[in-house]
Order: sequence, then structure tokens, then C-alpha cells
Amino acid sequence: MSLLENATAPTTGDFDSAAFYAKLDESKLAARALATANTAAKDAALEAIAQDLLAHVDEIVAANADDLARGQADGLSTGLLDRLTLTPQRVQGLADAVLDIVAIADPVGESVRGKTLPNGVHLEQVRVPFGVVGAIYEARPNVTVDIAALALKSGNAAVLRGGSAAESTNRVLVAVIQGALARTGLPGTSVHTIDEFGRRGAAELMRARGWVDLLVPRGSAQLIQTVVTESTVPVIETGAGVVHIVLDASAREDWAVDIVRNAKVQRPSVCNAVETLLVHADAAARLLPPVLGALRESGVTIRADERARAVFPDAVPATDEDWATEYMSLDLAVRVVDDLDEAIDHIRRYSTSHTESIITNDLGNADRFLAEVDSAVVMVNASTRFTDGGEFGFGAEVGISTQKLHARGPMGLPELTSTKWLVRGSGQIRR
Amino acid sequence: MSLLENATAPTTGDFDSAAFYAKLDESKLAARALATANTAAKDAALEAIAQDLLAHVDEIVAANADDLARGQADGLSTGLLDRLTLTPQRVQGLADAVLDIVAIADPVGESVRGKTLPNGVHLEQVRVPFGVVGAIYEARPNVTVDIAALALKSGNAAVLRGGSAAESTNRVLVAVIQGALARTGLPGTSVHTIDEFGRRGAAELMRARGWVDLLVPRGSAQLIQTVVTESTVPVIETGAGVVHIVLDASAREDWAVDIVRNAKVQRPSVCNAVETLLVHADAAARLLPPVLGALRESGVTIRADERARAVFPDAVPATDEDWATEYMSLDLAVRVVDDLDEAIDHIRRYSTSHTESIITNDLGNADRFLAEVDSAVVMVNASTRFTDGGEFGFGAEVGISTQKLHARGPMGLPELTSTKWLVRGSGQIRR
Repeated sequence: MSLLENATAPTTGDFDSAAFYAKLDESKLAARALATANTAAKDAALEAIAQDLLAHVDEIVAANADDLARGQADGLSTGLLDRLTLTPQRVQGLADAVLDIVAIADPVGESVRGKTLPNGVHLEQVRVPFGVVGAIYEARPNVTVDIAALALKSGNAAVLRGGSAAESTNRVLVAVIQGALARTGLPGTSVHTIDEFGRRGAAELMRARGWVDLLVPRGSAQLIQTVVTESTVPVIETGAGVVHIVLDASAREDWAVDIVRNAKVQRPSVCNAVETLLVHADAAARLLPPVLGALRESGVTIRADERARAVFPDAVPATDEDWATEYMSLDLAVRVVDDLDEAIDHIRRYSTSHTESIITNDLGNADRFLAEVDSAVVMVNASTRFTDGGEFGFGAEVGISTQKLHARGPMGLPELTSTKWLVRGSGQIRR
Repeated sequence: MSLLENATAPTTGDFDSAAFYAKLDESKLAARALATANTAAKDAALEAIAQDLLAHVDEIVAANADDLARGQADGLSTGLLDRLTLTPQRVQGLADAVLDIVAIADPVGESVRGKTLPNGVHLEQVRVPFGVVGAIYEARPNVTVDIAALALKSGNAAVLRGGSAAESTNRVLVAVIQGALARTGLPGTSVHTIDEFGRRGAAELMRARGWVDLLVPRGSAQLIQTVVTESTVPVIETGAGVVHIVLDASAREDWAVDIVRNAKVQRPSVCNAVETLLVHADAAARLLPPVLGALRESGVTIRADERARAVFPDAVPATDEDWATEYMSLDLAVRVVDDLDEAIDHIRRYSTSHTESIITNDLGNADRFLAEVDSAVVMVNASTRFTDGGEFGFGAEVGISTQKLHARGPMGLPELTSTKWLVRGSGQIRR
């Protein structure tokens, strides 16, 4: 399903550059209208989209059945097929998610800062939409609706490349969205799919400077890597999480047990789940048996280094590969470190800079950890599962950025906007 | 002097990849120390740099003489040679500019937002340095000192590629900076030049993901374009300005004359100078003679379309090329438009989205212009020359961003920082 695998997929003939850029021209034009659409108009369109998704549930599920049949014939994994599947219940979930976005504050027009200069010129920095937001993702039809709705609420046109595996489903979903937009007076062209342009279309989208203002990849690490390295349009990297918890010498046992179990077991398949546990040597004998014992009861496979296995023998020996692995499953790598420096060094080397947490009662170590660990979210005595737009109170989550430019950590709707300066004068010139 | 022209310049032999990445490793290590250096330590280093620049003025000027001699032999233009020249007086100016940066507030550690969740978990988003900031520029030794000082104050290590034409000067400047850093206890490796790695070093810098957190190109449109399209590391585009002023039908004559003259004549070589004047057809006969007459008195060459020449015959006929040209000289393109829509369409087509201003007394048209023109800075009744970090009160100007990601318009020190979330709990887990 990745962009690279698609190289072997059948394409729909030669790439039609004129048709491709004609679509992007429509997106640019739609973005102009969206930029000045007020919140009421955008909310009405979102409500219409939710309605129409439910009204067209049979068509959507039928198109999805085509994709599923093709996926089964192509030998897609059970996990991929599950992500690809839309049932009537899941379509209801999509419609509900769109209505949730209606409830979130519109970031467009928000005044970020402002002042009046001594000469009377007034400056105001306000949030404005990016313009055209592109998304590249894989076999997840829910992302089609999700990104379209988030883009619309923040005043952006959306150009979607949802991958060949979900092409039939996405075609129907986008048609439904376009119909609802047109019905409520916004341009139907505000949301486009470019799936029909195949792999070449995706590659072209990544280099469509002047048409696409922002590109968001969603999916496998490989897909994100391809988009980040191939794109000349600005990208927001929503990244993988090789997430660490450090048990300091002074860590409370109850907090250590609760937090590590919550971070590993509550939802192991997500990016904020812990993957590696680092334990201070002075606390290994005290903490590892209860912490790892609780995990084993929950079905977790422990992959531990030599020193950890000395106090918790019932573990698989860890290899160097384990430190760099985002399991997204009930597996945990465990390592004993001599001190906080060694823990921080390990994190610097292996972390994807998503989230790290330390369990400690030592104020100095807590402060050092917060200051020296260079990740999007750095925690003391809390579960890494809190790194989430919903938990942070953003209402919707566009993704979790692991890059440093523009947005870092959980992204809400304001992160789908840029700003511009409005300058109001009365004849002033520069002296 | 551009990256592309350098293709024919002699190189210093094969690219030494190990030596190149050893330098970048030093930069990463230095960035760690800088990230937790307090403001007093960074300010002391900046003061030492200013001192040492003055103490080594003879060496700097001597090295610069070598570059100038080479530049003259290579046939550099007078303009380039002037930019390349460092006199004792200009070195004093560099030292003064460094001291100016001491006076600016340190953005690192600033709390951007924060809150306590219902479960007692406290969230705080704080500004942190990017880490390693790269800069690619051409034959401007002042940028070496400027970027190094801005990077240091914002807690970033700097890796500089200043181009072969200024190589000797930059080598001495960087050595002076490194000495001052080491003398005050910060890593000397906080500022590196990679000029010795030639053109290949610049290309490698653009793709050094994992080493370089942010890349800032400074120089010609061609250089910026190369960096933007070739880089896989995040870039901030500081762009060219094809800047427009619109004279609406209701524009006051005195404001039109004053603002257009100020925007064109005060400093024609900078990016916020106006390049194209668009005039409402109903006001052309009233406004063009006084506005263009005043410009001609100041030595401006008028390049006008047919309709503008009908009311101001003493103008060169404009060609389509004029609308897309950033003259950076005493030239102005002038066009008559039928209405505000035509003016906005012209701007959408030809603007580099830097700055546009309308002179008008019509409230509705002012509001439409502010809402519909998609540029970093949009003005009503003010000179485009106000688009400037100093004028905006930022204290220092890193550049003027014409991109929409991360920063837009004049950039101050905060734009050289990222953020991270600090999460402080007391045993909380996610329910």
C-alpha cells in the first residue's frame, strides 16, 4: 500500500499533466472562496456533509466492498483490510466526527497579536488559512473525511491522495462531500481527490509549489519518509513514536507500575504508547519485578538487556534493534542505566522525539529531564498516553508533529492556519 | 557567486564526508550546551564577540583584501564587490550590531501557553531553540556575524556556508567568534563554517536531516530557489518582493504622492520597496500626473501601460515582463485597472506575497483588500517600507518570510525557536 509498492500497481495510463493541474487550479480558486467564508457557512457545509454521508451509506459501503474484494485478491494483511473496511456503523462514526468539528472554534481571523506604533500605524497579526492543503495517506478512508472536514473548518481547500487500495471508497466519499458543499453554497471543488492520477500524481503533488501550501502525510513511517524527502512543498511530519519512560532511583513504585502499564497496555497500537523502559541501576531490583510482573499479567512480552534480566529473568534477551523499534504491540524493551546521563543519552540516540516521561521524586532530576530531553512532549510522573489533541483539549487532532518547524506535538485546528499582518495607517511614510 | 556558478569554481579536492559530518556532530553537541545556557552566559559571549571583532580588525580587513583581490580578478560586479568589502568602519558596524542583539529579549524558555487539566496534569508550552541552524548565503561577510549572533542569542548552534567569494573573510570572522565563545565558557564549536567543503558541502548541508534543524537561505532569488527545492531539511524562505501599491478611486492625492514616493525612492534596493503601481481607471487622470511627476523628480524611470501613458506620456512602454520584475532600482511599473477586482487579480498573478498596500478612503474596499490579498503584510494607507523587523519593534530582523509555514512576514528572534510541551503530573494515567 505504500507509495513505493505502488510502483508495481497498474496505472491508468499516461499521466495527464493538464488534467492534474486543472484540478489544482480549481483547488486554488476554491481556496480563495473558503478564505473569506464565515464560520456559519463552513459549519453549515460540515453539517450537510455529515447528513449526506448517512444518506449515501449504501453507496459508500458498496464501493468499499469493491476495494475490499480487490484488497483480498491482492493479499492485503488482515490489519490493512480492517483499516480499509467501512461498515454502516463506521460511516455513522465518520458523520459524528464531522459534527464534532462543527463544535470546535474556527481559528480563522483570530487576532494573534497587535499594537499601535508611535506614528499611529496599527499592526495586527491574524490567523488565515494556508490555502490548499494536500494529504497523502494509505488505505484509510476515514482520513478522507477527517482531513476534508478539518481543512474546511480552517478555511482550506483539500487535495487528497488516498492510495489505490481505497480508490473506489474515496471516490464516493469525495463525491458525497462535493455534493454537500455545492448544496450549501461553498465550491464543490474545495475537496478533490487525485487518486486517478496514480503514483505519478502523488509525486507531482509533492512538488506542486505554488499550488499546494501544505502537505500532511499520514500512515507508515516509510510513506512519511518518502513524502518528507521528496517534497518541495512544505510538509508537516506526523511521526512515529519510539517513546521512553525512565524510572529514576527515587521513583514511587505505585506510580511506576500504574504509569508504565497504562502507557504500554491501554492502547499499544498508537504512537504515544511506551516502547522502551529505562531503569536506574539503583532501582532495578526494587522496581522491575513489580512493574514488569504487572505488564506480564497484561500479556506484554518483555525484551530486556542482561542487567534487567538479572532481576527479572522471565524476559527475552534484547538486541540493539529493539532500542530503535516502534513495536505498536504488546512488546516492551527494557534496559538498566547507570544514571540519568545514560538515560538521556539513550533517548537522544534512539528516540523519535515524540514523547518521553520520567518517574521520579527527585526535583533536580525532574528539572534536568524537562530541560535536556529534546522531544515534542516531555513529562514528569505522567503517562505518555496523554500526548493527544483530545487530552490536551484541542477538540480535534490533525496529528502529532514530531518536527520543530511550525507545529510540535499535538496539532489542533490553529496549526492548519498561517498568519498575515494587517497594517492600517493614515498616510504614514517611513522616516 | 551563486551556488550554480560555483559549479565551475575550483574545488579543494574530493568531498571529505567524514570531516564534514564530524563538524556537524560538533555542532549538534554544541547545540545541547547552548539549549540550556542562560541568557547572561549568551549575552557575555555576544559582548566578547563584539570586543574581539574590534581587536582583530586588522586581520579581518587583511583577509577581506584577499577575497576582494580574487573577486576583482574573477570580474565580480561593482555591487557584489561593495557587499563583499569590510572596512574598519564596517567592522565597527558589525560589532555594534552584535551588541544590539544583547539588548533584545531572549525568547528561550518563554511560556507560550499552559493550563492544568481536570485531572491535575499541568501542561506548559515553552520556547526552545531549534538546535542547529544552517545558513547559506553569498559574498556577504556581514551575514556571517549577523546570523551567528542571532542564532547564539536564541540558543542555536550555527553552521554557515558563506560562499567561496568571501571564504577568507568568513574564515577569520568565524575563528574570532569561536575564540570569543571559548573564552566565555560556551563551546567554540557553536559556530562553524563549512566553506572549505565547497559546493558539495552546501548540497550536503541541504540534505543533512538529523543534523540541521533549520536552514535559512539569504541572497539572490536564484540561490533561495535552489535551497528551497533541493533541501530535505526544513527551510525558511526569505523572499523577493514584487511589491504593489494600489491607488483606489477615492485615494487622497497627498497620501498617494507621499506613500508611493517613500515606498519607491527612500531605499529602492530593498525587498519592501514598491515595484508596481496599480491605479483605478477613475483616478488615473487625477492621480498619475502628481504621483508620477514627483517620482520623476526623484529620478524614477516610469514603465507604464498604454492607459497610464495616455495621462502621463513621459513614460517607457511597459512589457509583460515588467509586472513580474523586482527592479530593486529607481524603476516603477504602472498599470491602470478597471476596478478593485482587476487590481487584486493582478496582485494574485504577479505578487511574491511579500507586501501590498492600498491607498483608499473607501472602507469597503479597504476591508476587501485586507481580506482578499494573500500576502505576508497587507496595508491600507501606509508605506510598504514599514514591512521590517525594526519598524515592527522586533529589535532584530532575521529576515522577512514569504512562506506560510512557521513564520510569515518580518521574523524576530522568537521565529528562530521551536516549542516543546512540558507536562508535570503526580502519577496520573489515561482513563
